[in-house]
Amino acid sequence: SQYQYVKNFERENFLLPETYIVVRVDGRGFHRFSKFYNFEKPNDVRALNVINKAAEGVFRSVQDIFMAYGDSDEYSFAFDRSSNLFERREAKLVSTVVSTFTAHYISAWASQFDEPLKPEHLPTFDGRAVCYPNLKVLRDYFAWRQVDCHINNLYNTTFWTLVLKGGLSTQEAEQRLCGTLSSDKNEILFSEFGINYNNESEMFKKGTTIVWEEPLVGTGQSGEEPSARQVQRMAKKRSKIALQLLHVDIIRDQFWGRFGPNLA
Amino acid sequence: SQYQYVKNFERENFLLPETYIVVRVDGRGFHRFSKFYNFEKPNDVRALNVINKAAEGVFRSVQDIFMAYGDSDEYSFAFDRSSNLFERREAKLVSTVVSTFTAHYISAWASQFDEPLKPEHLPTFDGRAVCYPNLKVLRDYFAWRQVDCHINNLYNTTFWTLVLKGGLSTQEAEQRLCGTLSSDKNEILFSEFGINYNNESEMFKKGTTIVWEEPLVGTGQSGEEPSARQVQRMAKKRSKIALQLLHVDIIRDQFWGRFGPNLA
Amino acid sequence: SQYQYVKNFERENFLLPETYIVVRVDGRGFHRFSKFYNFEKPNDVRALNVINKAAEGVFRSVQDIFMAYGDSDEYSFAFDRSSNLFERREAKLVSTVVSTFTAHYISAWASQFDEPLKPEHLPTFDGRAVCYPNLKVLRDYFAWRQVDCHINNLYNTTFWTLVLKGGLSTQEAEQRLCGTLSSDKNEILFSEFGINYNNESEMFKKGTTIVWEEPLVGTGQSGEEPSARQVQRMAKKRSKIALQLLHVDIIRDQFWGRFGPNLA
Amino acid sequence: SQYQYVKNFERENFLLPETYIVVRVDGRGFHRFSKFYNFEKPNDVRALNVINKAAEGVFRSVQDIFMAYGDSDEYSFAFDRSSNLFERREAKLVSTVVSTFTAHYISAWASQFDEPLKPEHLPTFDGRAVCYPNLKVLRDYFAWRQVDCHINNLYNTTFWTLVLKGGLSTQEAEQRLCGTLSSDKNEILFSEFGINYNNESEMFKKGTTIVWEEPLVGTGQSGEEPSARQVQRMAKKRSKIALQLLHVDIIRDQFWGRFGPNLA
Ligand SMILES: Nc1nc2c(ncn2[C@H]2C[C@H](O)[C@@H](COP(=O)(O)OP(=O)(O)OP(=O)(O)O)O2)c(=O)[nH]1
Ligand SMILES: Nc1nc2c(ncn2[C@H]2C[C@H](O)[C@@H](COP(=O)(O)OP(=O)(O)OP(=O)(O)O)O2)c(=O)[nH]1
Ligand SMILES: Nc1nc2c(ncn2[C@H]2C[C@H](O)[C@@H](COP(=O)(O)OP(=O)(O)OP(=O)(O)O)O2)c(=O)[nH]1
Ligand SMILES: Nc1nc2c(ncn2[C@H]2C[C@H](O)[C@@H](COP(=O)(O)OP(=O)(O)OP(=O)(O)O)O2)c(=O)[nH]1
Ligand SMILES: O=P(O)(O)OP(=O)(O)OP(=O)(O)O
Ligand SMILES: O=P(O)(O)OP(=O)(O)OP(=O)(O)O
Ligand SMILES: O=P(O)(O)OP(=O)(O)OP(=O)(O)O
Ligand SMILES: O=P(O)(O)OP(=O)(O)OP(=O)(O)O
Ligand SMILES: [Mg+2]
Ligand SMILES: [Mg+2]
Ligand SMILES: [Mg+2]
Ligand SMILES: [Mg+2]
Ligand SMILES: [Mg+2]
Ligand SMILES: [Mg+2]
Ligand SMILES: [Mg+2]
Ligand SMILES: [Mg+2]
Ligand SMILES: [Mg+2]
Ligand SMILES: [Mg+2]
Ligand SMILES: [Mg+2]
Ligand SMILES: [Mg+2]
Repeated sequence: SQYQYVKNFERENFLLPETYIVVRVDGRGFHRFSKFYNFEKPNDVRALNVINKAAEGVFRSVQDIFMAYGDSDEYSFAFDRSSNLFERREAKLVSTVVSTFTAHYISAWASQFDEPLKPEHLPTFDGRAVCYPNLKVLRDYFAWRQVDCHINNLYNTTFWTLVLKGGLSTQEAEQRLCGTLSSDKNEILFSEFGINYNNESEMFKKGTTIVWEEPLVGTGQSGEEPSARQVQRMAKKRSKIALQLLHVDIIRDQFWGRFGPNLA
Repeated sequence: SQYQYVKNFERENFLLPETYIVVRVDGRGFHRFSKFYNFEKPNDVRALNVINKAAEGVFRSVQDIFMAYGDSDEYSFAFDRSSNLFERREAKLVSTVVSTFTAHYISAWASQFDEPLKPEHLPTFDGRAVCYPNLKVLRDYFAWRQVDCHINNLYNTTFWTLVLKGGLSTQEAEQRLCGTLSSDKNEILFSEFGINYNNESEMFKKGTTIVWEEPLVGTGQSGEEPSARQVQRMAKKRSKIALQLLHVDIIRDQFWGRFGPNLA
Repeated sequence: SQYQYVKNFERENFLLPETYIVVRVDGRGFHRFSKFYNFEKPNDVRALNVINKAAEGVFRSVQDIFMAYGDSDEYSFAFDRSSNLFERREAKLVSTVVSTFTAHYISAWASQFDEPLKPEHLPTFDGRAVCYPNLKVLRDYFAWRQVDCHINNLYNTTFWTLVLKGGLSTQEAEQRLCGTLSSDKNEILFSEFGINYNNESEMFKKGTTIVWEEPLVGTGQSGEEPSARQVQRMAKKRSKIALQLLHVDIIRDQFWGRFGPNLA
Repeated sequence: SQYQYVKNFERENFLLPETYIVVRVDGRGFHRFSKFYNFEKPNDVRALNVINKAAEGVFRSVQDIFMAYGDSDEYSFAFDRSSNLFERREAKLVSTVVSTFTAHYISAWASQFDEPLKPEHLPTFDGRAVCYPNLKVLRDYFAWRQVDCHINNLYNTTFWTLVLKGGLSTQEAEQRLCGTLSSDKNEILFSEFGINYNNESEMFKKGTTIVWEEPLVGTGQSGEEPSARQVQRMAKKRSKIALQLLHVDIIRDQFWGRFGPNLA
């Protein structure tokens, strides 16, 4: 029609080829959301189960992802360096991941929570795509997220122990922890509450890393845009291969030796 | 941490100030999705009710939207020219709208469909943001979408009438309509099936336009980033003001005189 | 060749249609450059003549420019809202303007300066493109530059009068002017040196604005990419139409009524 | 001033960190330009000397360049992967290189050509920046340019030999070469004109590669924005270190082993 020219105002951002695309999603206002649905403090296993299922949903239904990592209300998905999904169009990639993540989060909710979601308090997520040009910076990206998980979890664990077991008000706990080092928090937990932080759940301390059980040969890693038929076949294949949910150190070399991207 | 430098790889796209931002979402693979859940052909009122509720959800929970228009599996949201939502960061805007839309779509499903959503067949949407620098091109944008709705609906109505009432196979119907003009399709409907296209449901022919019942003074139209407090107050205000769902011509001047953006 | 794929790494930024593109160039390190070639202080007429010729060169050889404004070591060029020059590719536009400007600056040098340019001290310019979505912000852009010209010129005039006629050191002059208002500077000039700032050269006070002598109908304003032949014909036409160099107020309405872009 | 808000319409494109930035400049309309100044065919040594000097000028005055390659009317400059020049702002980088290149081209002209440049026929260049995320694609980039040089030069050499020595019209020469392979062109040169293409000038066949005579330790390769003082000191240092102009194969490993970027 005479109006079609308005489509020319669309601007695409094609993400730089041969870089690792990472899409990170993060819960919007989960401070409030977690309060509203009475998440356990500092970590609610049900909530983590839900978000892990959401991540699995993305992993299975969006092509070319080789690794995901998440904790708290966030998840990061790393795409093959050679992925040409949606021609690497940024808005398509981000919106598809965010929408798929949201859908699966809601879909998985009832399996973990008795209280159903209320229309005025639905979980939503923002998303962004970032390019990392080589494996070193990609590894540093995941290290950044895992260190963040560790720092937050140690803080939250100590904070809520002080409040729930130590009887401090939240303000008092905050003040108590102000300026403390990691070693101080470990010490508080151990000497005052007999808690050895090392014995806490690995999922809480390390977050969750998702990888394929076996390498996904020929299911979307190629550079060419696959046909609709191929996409469906690959989707089916992906739906059958098992995923591994790990709670391990992803900073050190060992993980990357086993699960890192094929660099050929 | 030593890894924080990786955050510097994030690139923001700040959408040009003083332009109308339009975010359009579109169902991913709704051809298959509508088949799987047995949508009525050519238009399923339940499905349109669900998508309209999803749009209402976005309208109410995302600031600075003054108008939305949708049909089939898509919806477009227009933001105030002066909006400074998320500092006009593209990925934030797109991902927030898409996630909120997806969440409300799923949330509204059960009110219209008996069959619950299956985890392997969840509704998901892609999204994009486009800037329109003046009211003329913005109007042309919405005209483009409404003309598209009209063309598709006339085609689909005639196609499915030929199939469902005329006994043609889908291939035969396709061939029959190949190369026909609008007038031809109107004629087929009228002379062969006694259907006057003008009497079809306005929602099918015109799509759905959403506007505020009363102008939203002081609830987010200003250029400054509002405080968390203000955001909440405005959200509350927005949740009380009624929305209008219209099925009207949005190409001609009349609509824009009444509901167009305040140009002061 | 097998290497051609590297061209796919090029990213184009297509500037938003229907907005006024402004390209601003600014001398790199002209503080040093003006010292090296002993520019007169605060304003060197020869240098302004050279930069004005450079701007004329751009005006004539780059299509779709309807207005330029410059002072000191900078110039801004405004393109027709509907220009489709280089498909509105940012790097092409900026680099072409900057290169043409640099070439003409050097070419015009000898007509104004006896001392030839030295290879170790050549004039160079940076450049950038900015989109302005409507006439109000475009006018505000030029107002911004003209106010800047005024502020700098009043400061520089007073500063160098204090130094050259008042015998102050540059440090003393700086301190003397620290915190002064426009009115204070006018007063210093008048009461201490008998200089009425209003009587200073209009070129110094207002900068230089370039417009076509007569409207350029059919010489590049259309949306379509013109043929090589047309481009040449238009270039010839442009080379014959006279340019006006004005030293006038471009903030008030009067200028825009006469020389503003055709809004049809 | 009240108008300063217009600066917020400027959009920066920060080029992805840890990638090799290549800026390529190319003469605008050099088909015409070379005709106007009667360049020798197919290769004018004077013109190549001028463009090589222009490249040297850029190499010396713009920081963080470790390699340049050029032929015909184009030159490519590769920046250190870790360069933070202009915070990696695209428009600054491109415009600075293009302006500096243009200035030095004009400045060097008189040393090679008797006929001075005419104001209506000045040399100008466009420019663009491209990011290459690893050494493989960077090498492929330069291979692409050198293969292009070879193909063009073999064609042009044969074409102009057919015209100038073989007495063909340009149209006849074009037809004669239509569809021919490299081997055919070599054969024509050899059997019809006794010319062994291998004996042609290396500069024509291989183009020109510029590298530093000795590694530039501590003169701008670091990530931090250097102080004005440091920049000047480095500039001085750069002005003293010799440059090497090579006419060698840059596709094979040997070159990169000796002159490739420090990957530490
Ligand atoms: N009690 C509890 N809270 C959790 C759990 N997981 C996440 N949260 C809460 C703690 C934080 O307040 C919040 C995540 O922090 P964010 O920095 O993402 O902030 P938030 O989502 O509120 O704001 P945002 O919209 O992301 O800027 O979610 C959990 O398992 N238990
Ligand atoms: N039967 C039926 N189908 C509908 C209805 N609304 C939408 N659809 C179907 C018809 C189209 O096949 C599809 C929308 O067309 P699209 O161009 O968006 O294609 P689709 O979503 O399949 O692919 P996409 O992922 O958007 O490229 O949704 C409805 O009310 N009834
Ligand atoms: N004496 C004298 N100096 C002038 C004249 N026109 C411009 N200049 C000098 C004064 C300023 O130091 C300089 C322009 O200021 P800028 O802000 O553009 O600074 P500059 O070019 O040094 O640095 P930049 O590379 O633009 O960041 O040029 C003139 O007519 N006479
Ligand atoms: N006779 C002669 N011509 C040369 C020499 N070096 C370059 N040229 C000419 C041959 C080509 O026509 C032209 C370079 O080709 P381009 O593809 O860059 O085309 P041109 O610059 O005309 O157009 P453009 O503005 O880059 O699209 O310059 C030379 O040494 N001798
Ligand atoms: O969301 P966070 O906490 O990671 O912090 P950010 O990414 O700097 O903020 P934003 O979500 O606004 O990009
Ligand atoms: O999705 P459509 O049908 O509007 O078509 P498009 O926008 O051109 O395609 P895409 O979804 O790939 O941007
Ligand atoms: O160059 P200036 O003085 O106008 O200042 P800026 O534009 O803010 O700085 P830059 O040249 O670095 O864009
Ligand atoms: O300039 P060329 O010949 O390398 O070709 P291009 O780069 O594809 O064209 P443009 O200069 O328009 O980017
Ligand atoms: Mg955030
Ligand atoms: Mg969050
Ligand atoms: Mg979070
Ligand atoms: Mg689409
Ligand atoms: Mg769809
Ligand atoms: Mg659709
Ligand atoms: Mg500047
Ligand atoms: Mg300057
Ligand atoms: Mg300046
Ligand atoms: Mg080109
Ligand atoms: Mg050229
Ligand atoms: Mg060329």
